[in-house]
Amino acid sequence: MYQLFFKKLCEKIDLTDGEIELFKKYLTPKKLRKKQYLLQEGDVCKSIAFVEHGALRAYTVDDKGGDHIIQFALEGWTVSDLYSFLTGEPASYNIEAIEDSELVLITKSAQEEILKAIPKYELYTRLQLTGAYLAMQKRLTSMLSLSIEERYSNFINLYPHIAQRVPQHMIASYLGLSPETLSRVRRKMTSK
Amino acid sequence: MYQLFFKKLCEKIDLTDGEIELFKKYLTPKKLRKKQYLLQEGDVCKSIAFVEHGALRAYTVDDKGGDHIIQFALEGWTVSDLYSFLTGEPASYNIEAIEDSELVLITKSAQEEILKAIPKYELYTRLQLTGAYLAMQKRLTSMLSLSIEERYSNFINLYPHIAQRVPQHMIASYLGLSPETLSRVRRKMTSK
Repeated sequence: MYQLFFKKLCEKIDLTDGEIELFKKYLTPKKLRKKQYLLQEGDVCKSIAFVEHGALRAYTVDDKGGDHIIQFALEGWTVSDLYSFLTGEPASYNIEAIEDSELVLITKSAQEEILKAIPKYELYTRLQLTGAYLAMQKRLTSMLSLSIEERYSNFINLYPHIAQRVPQHMIASYLGLSPETLSRVRRKMTSK
Repeated sequence: MYQLFFKKLCEKIDLTDGEIELFKKYLTPKKLRKKQYLLQEGDVCKSIAFVEHGALRAYTVDDKGGDHIIQFALEGWTVSDLYSFLTGEPASYNIEAIEDSELVLITKSAQEEILKAIPKYELYTRLQLTGAYLAMQKRLTSMLSLSIEERYSNFINLYPHIAQRVPQHMIASYLGLSPETLSRVRRKMTSK
């Protein structure tokens, strides 16, 4: 249990067996079936979720009911509405399982307790935040400056596993395209 | 000197007079005239810049030579290519003064020295990073899910000072619009 979680954690910080046992007390396992929600827009995001198995998507819905995928999360990734988690404001994201999934949750109060009990965990939270920031900086830069073809080809190079597991209409939503535009781009790239 | 920098810093963490004096040893003042660069794409971003006076923009240039503004920075804001600063990889941003500006620079080595000398500064760097992340999360969400009119009206509500000080073509670039589209949106909104 929590195997991948501790594998990833121990890649970044050294934990003794005692610390790992202590850490486990603060974690909450959660299973979601495909199409179940971890978080719905308007609720407060009370925990950060680490994906042990499965896949999720975080998305917003616009006034016309269109959805826009902010992030996918596969095994080993972390997903939350960090804005809501940190500020206590209502979430602007929905987070939904797109496959049956097993998660490890760290609630806000657990996070604070762990930081007190194992101060070096602070380094990990900082690295996580830095990583999240850098990923978002790259994503925004690509949205602003790349052509549709470049965005798609970047995406499949960066995340080949997602491209294989996730339906095309979700990839279109992530890239900010209509499904028709994505089909056209894929046909054009295959025929080259 | 460094007046606004320490005002902002002391809003977040308590520093003694001794610590402030110590801190000053690690800071580097820099003046830029309008149109001078703090950072050019391809160079490594070696410092984080705090704006005491003036205004800057961070932008990327696409293959066709079009520029895309990632961020404005007015008095009291911080600007850098954080990806490049943290990883040592070449910057993907250009950072240019759009008014005569006075900056306070913290180089990477200075940052590390300050963290050793004044450990509570770590909290500040974490709050800064969190703030930068949240701003980018909001920006990405708005790029993905809002109409052009909503994006413009959000922008002038959130940043009335920027809208007054910055040329319209730069606001268009920030919003991902052509200057013509922005003019049309503004005319439409004024006539309502």
